[in-house]
Amino acid sequence: MSIIDVMRTRRSTRKYKPDPVPEEVFLRVMEAVRIAPSGKNLQPWHFVIVKDKKMKEKLAVSSAHQYFIAEAPLIIVACAYPENSYAKMGRYMKSWPVDVAIAVDHLMLKAEEEGLGTCWIGSFREEEVKAHLGVPEDVKVLALTPLGYPNEVPKDRGRKSLDEIVSYEKFLA
Amino acid sequence: MSIIDVMRTRRSTRKYKPDPVPEEVFLRVMEAVRIAPSGKNLQPWHFVIVKDKKMKEKLAVSSAHQYFIAEAPLIIVACAYPENSYAKMGRYMKSWPVDVAIAVDHLMLKAEEEGLGTCWIGSFREEEVKAHLGVPEDVKVLALTPLGYPNEVPKDRGRKSLDEIVSYEKFLA
Repeated sequence: MSIIDVMRTRRSTRKYKPDPVPEEVFLRVMEAVRIAPSGKNLQPWHFVIVKDKKMKEKLAVSSAHQYFIAEAPLIIVACAYPENSYAKMGRYMKSWPVDVAIAVDHLMLKAEEEGLGTCWIGSFREEEVKAHLGVPEDVKVLALTPLGYPNEVPKDRGRKSLDEIVSYEKFLA
Repeated sequence: MSIIDVMRTRRSTRKYKPDPVPEEVFLRVMEAVRIAPSGKNLQPWHFVIVKDKKMKEKLAVSSAHQYFIAEAPLIIVACAYPENSYAKMGRYMKSWPVDVAIAVDHLMLKAEEEGLGTCWIGSFREEEVKAHLGVPEDVKVLALTPLGYPNEVPKDRGRKSLDEIVSYEKFLA
């Protein structure tokens, strides 16, 4: 599967089969995460893998009641170490949201290639999610995603044309 | 080229050949950007493509004097519309850094597949870059990247092991 085909067929999946993700498939997906690039190669991330049904339901409630995420066999919670980034980057920028976003993008692309569905969950009560999982105070939660085999084929939502998003030499929009 | 091979061979390229990027190759790279996912499909991004030598040099100076970026045939400046995101997402989160980071990750992966080099530039004086390119006040600049054919093969910088970045059911690091 070419990379553009992977990008083109990826969707936000909101219906999942109960089938578990085989360990070897899960490890291939996580390998794509592990090798993701980050500013100064800091890799300021940690991923909590949740399979426990009750915990998945708690996370769903704390994620704006998006109950579908608890139907997937597992939920991956993407955490970030902002202080590590700040210190080493001289605090001139917040690199951690970008770094962890890249890692999660790698996750979603590799998952798609493996026939798995994901859904970027950015709407959640961070303090609740942190309390559920025992995430330390100085660690951030950037996003959650369910991971499992899709039980739907979501439609293409369309995109802007290239002309709408690109200009040459100067900003023209 | 499998997606994991693309991810594995991608490097931050800091030496470029002067050879131009053929238009059809450039368009294939930008197609990967165009189809990137974003929160609520807002696509809160705009990309300025800079080929002018003097402008590339100005951008290099404003990017912590990383002069190598001006050697590439072009520089892509990734901009974001934060206000659009805030308004439609109900201001409960800053989705735009994540959204634009995903789009730039798509750019870098597709560029790698095409044999092109890129380098995430996150260290720049935003107000200067905006002034150079005429970026409106309410638009942000997230990152720049040179795009061109590599004139070096950077070494693998290594990564943490999976055990170091993953825990199960609870945060354990």
